[in-house]
Amino acid sequence: MLQDQTFLRAPGPTPVPDRVKHAMNEPMIGHRSPSFAQLFADTSERLKPIFGTTQPVYTLTASGTAALEAAVTNTVPKGEKVIVVVAGAFGDRFANICEHNGYPTHRLEVEWGRSVSPEDLKNTLQEHPDAKAVLLTYNETSTGVMHPIGELSEKVHQYSEALVLVDGVSCIGGVPGNMDHWNLDVLVTGSQKAMMLPPGLSFVSLSKRAEAKLTDGNPSFYLNLKAYQKQLENSMTPYTPAVSLIQGVKEVSEMMKEETLDHVFERHHLMKDMTRAGIKALGLPLLTSEEDASPTVTSVKETAEFKPDELRSLLSKQFGLTLAGGQKELKGKIFRIGHMGYCSPVDILTTLSMIEMGLKQLGVEIELGKGVKAAQEVYVQNV
Amino acid sequence: MLQDQTFLRAPGPTPVPDRVKHAMNEPMIGHRSPSFAQLFADTSERLKPIFGTTQPVYTLTASGTAALEAAVTNTVPKGEKVIVVVAGAFGDRFANICEHNGYPTHRLEVEWGRSVSPEDLKNTLQEHPDAKAVLLTYNETSTGVMHPIGELSEKVHQYSEALVLVDGVSCIGGVPGNMDHWNLDVLVTGSQKAMMLPPGLSFVSLSKRAEAKLTDGNPSFYLNLKAYQKQLENSMTPYTPAVSLIQGVKEVSEMMKEETLDHVFERHHLMKDMTRAGIKALGLPLLTSEEDASPTVTSVKETAEFKPDELRSLLSKQFGLTLAGGQKELKGKIFRIGHMGYCSPVDILTTLSMIEMGLKQLGVEIELGKGVKAAQEVYVQNV
Repeated sequence: MLQDQTFLRAPGPTPVPDRVKHAMNEPMIGHRSPSFAQLFADTSERLKPIFGTTQPVYTLTASGTAALEAAVTNTVPKGEKVIVVVAGAFGDRFANICEHNGYPTHRLEVEWGRSVSPEDLKNTLQEHPDAKAVLLTYNETSTGVMHPIGELSEKVHQYSEALVLVDGVSCIGGVPGNMDHWNLDVLVTGSQKAMMLPPGLSFVSLSKRAEAKLTDGNPSFYLNLKAYQKQLENSMTPYTPAVSLIQGVKEVSEMMKEETLDHVFERHHLMKDMTRAGIKALGLPLLTSEEDASPTVTSVKETAEFKPDELRSLLSKQFGLTLAGGQKELKGKIFRIGHMGYCSPVDILTTLSMIEMGLKQLGVEIELGKGVKAAQEVYVQNV
Repeated sequence: MLQDQTFLRAPGPTPVPDRVKHAMNEPMIGHRSPSFAQLFADTSERLKPIFGTTQPVYTLTASGTAALEAAVTNTVPKGEKVIVVVAGAFGDRFANICEHNGYPTHRLEVEWGRSVSPEDLKNTLQEHPDAKAVLLTYNETSTGVMHPIGELSEKVHQYSEALVLVDGVSCIGGVPGNMDHWNLDVLVTGSQKAMMLPPGLSFVSLSKRAEAKLTDGNPSFYLNLKAYQKQLENSMTPYTPAVSLIQGVKEVSEMMKEETLDHVFERHHLMKDMTRAGIKALGLPLLTSEEDASPTVTSVKETAEFKPDELRSLLSKQFGLTLAGGQKELKGKIFRIGHMGYCSPVDILTTLSMIEMGLKQLGVEIELGKGVKAAQEVYVQNV
C-alpha cells in the first residue's frame, strides 16, 4: 500500500525502536577505552534484573546458537550424558549442538505444540541417572509453547545432580528470567527478540554451581566463558565486541527500566491474550493450549479454507506484513505471529486487521473486524 | 575542547560513515525473508573483489577471532602440525587459537616490529615438512608491520603441501586481498577496521583446496563452515545473522565501488606515507622500516623525552583523540596511529597537529607544524 511501510511480526528479529537506533549511532569508541569499560560495566549490570540473577551476565558477539553451544560445552565435561527436551525446532537445535559436540544425548521428544510435563521429565531423569545436564527451551519459538521452567527445574534438582541449562532466546526480556529464583544453572538469550535490538549479541549467565565447572580447556577458543569471566572483571570482553549493539543494550535496558520490568511482562501477556482472543473470534484454530501459550509468539493452524503460506505471501505483498511460517514438521501447516519486544497492544490490532483482510481475500468465511473487536475487548478489560 | 567531539584513530574499531549508519537504521527485516536473501546474495558477491577472489566469502556473526578459529579448525584435521608466524600480539593470538584446539604448533618467532623473511619461513618449512598449514598475519596490528604475504605464500607452495591461512583482519578493505592471485587458502577479515563498519561481523573465504577439507564434524557447531557453505547456496546463513551490520556491508561496499578499490588502496598508502613523513619530521622514531610499514597503522616509539601513554592520555582528555598504546611486550613503549577505513589525508593532518600540540605540552622539543607540513608535502607530491 505505502511502498516502504513494513510491519515485522515475526518471532525475531523484531523491530528496533528509534531511541535504540540513535544510541547505536553514537560515535564509535575503542573497545579497550575507559569509555567502553564504563559502558560495558553498566550494561552488564543492567542485564542482571532481566535475567533475574545477581550472577554476572556475559555478553557474546555471536548469535544465540553460539551462546547455547557455549552453555553446554563450558559446563558439561566432554563425553558426559545430557538430556534434551525436544518439543520443536529449537529443542532440536539444542540437541544437535550436543550431538555435534560428541555428548551422548537423550532426546525427550514432546509433541510439537505441547509443553513437556514435569512428570515425563521426572521419569526420564530416573531412567538416565547418569545425565549431567538437562537442556530446556524456555519458549519454543517454532511452536509458540512456553515450558513451565520453574517446575521443570525443581524436578531436575529434586531427582538428580544434573545442571539445568535453559535456552531463553525467544522470551527473555518479555517474561521474567527468574534465574536465581528457579535455580537455573545457565540461562541464555539473544539480542534480536524481546530484547528489542538487532541480532548480533547473545547473553549468558551461570549459577555459582555452573561457574565452578568453567575451565581453560573448553573445546572452542572463542566460546570459552572463562575468558569472558576474566575480562568482565575489568569490564572488558576478551575479543572485539559489537560495540554499537552494546551501545544499544544500554538504551533498551533504560527503556525497560522506565516502563518497569513488571509492566513489560504484563504487556507481553496482554498481547498474547489479545492475539489469541482475536484468532479464536475468527474461528481459526490455535496450535497451543491456553496453558502452554507463549507470551511472545502465537501459532495459528491451517484450515481446509486457507494455506498459511499463501496468507503470509499475500500479506507481505499487500501490506509489508511479515509473519513467520512453520518450521520442519510444521512447515506449511501454521503461521506464527510474533508479539514481543517493541510491540504494543495497538500493533496487535493492526496485525489482526491485516490478517482478517488477507483471509477475506483468500475466500475464508470470516466476519471482518470480529478478531480486532475481540482483542479490543481483552484490552479494555485489562487496563 | 568541544565536549563531544571525538577523533578515533585507533587501529580498530574505526569511525563509521554516516551513510553506513543510515543504512544500518533501515527497518529490521527477517533473516529468513526474501528481502534478506536478496541483500545477502548481493553483499556476499560484493565482498569477492575486496578479497580478490572468485570463491564464496562467508559472513559470520562474530569477531575476527572466531573467524580465525574457524579458519584453522575447518581446514586442518585435529592433531596435525601447524606453523604460525608470530611477530606480534595477533600472531600470538593465532598461535593461541591453535594451541587451545590441540594442534601441535610451531611458532616461528619474529622480532616485534619486523616482518618475517621468506627465507626464514622456507627454513622452517624444511624443518617441519609435516606441517599441514602455515598461519600468517597479513597486517600485524600490534606493531604496524605488513608481511609480504604474496612472497610468503609462494614459498609455502614451493616447499610444502601446507595450506596458507591468512589473518587479514586489520587490513582487508584497505589493501588488496589478492587471495586468488597469491594462492591463499583461507583469508579472514573483520568488519570494524578497514571495512568501515562497527565490530560484530567477520568474513572468511576458502580456496577450492581448503573448501575440500570441510567436513560436518568440525569441533564447533557455530563455527562449522560447512553449514555456512550450504546455507549460502540459498543466500542465507545457518544461524541468525547480524542483519543491521549486513545492511551496512552493502553500503560500505557501495562506497568502495564509487571510490574504486584502486583509489581506496592508494589512499591508504598515501595516509601511511603522510603519517610516517610527519612523525619523522618531528624527530620521533618509527617502530618499523619503510619496507615493513603497514598502510593501516603506524607505530611510534617512546623517547627519553616522553612516555607514549602520557601523550595518549593528554590527547584523549584535551581533544577526544584516541590513539592506541602498545600491547604485551610493547606495552607503554609505543603509541599507534590507526589510518584505515573512513579516514582521509586531512584526518592525518588533524591527527599530526594534535600529536604535535600534545608533545609540546609534555616538554618535547619539537617545532609546531613541522610534522603537518611534511605530511602536506607528501600529499601535494602525490595527487
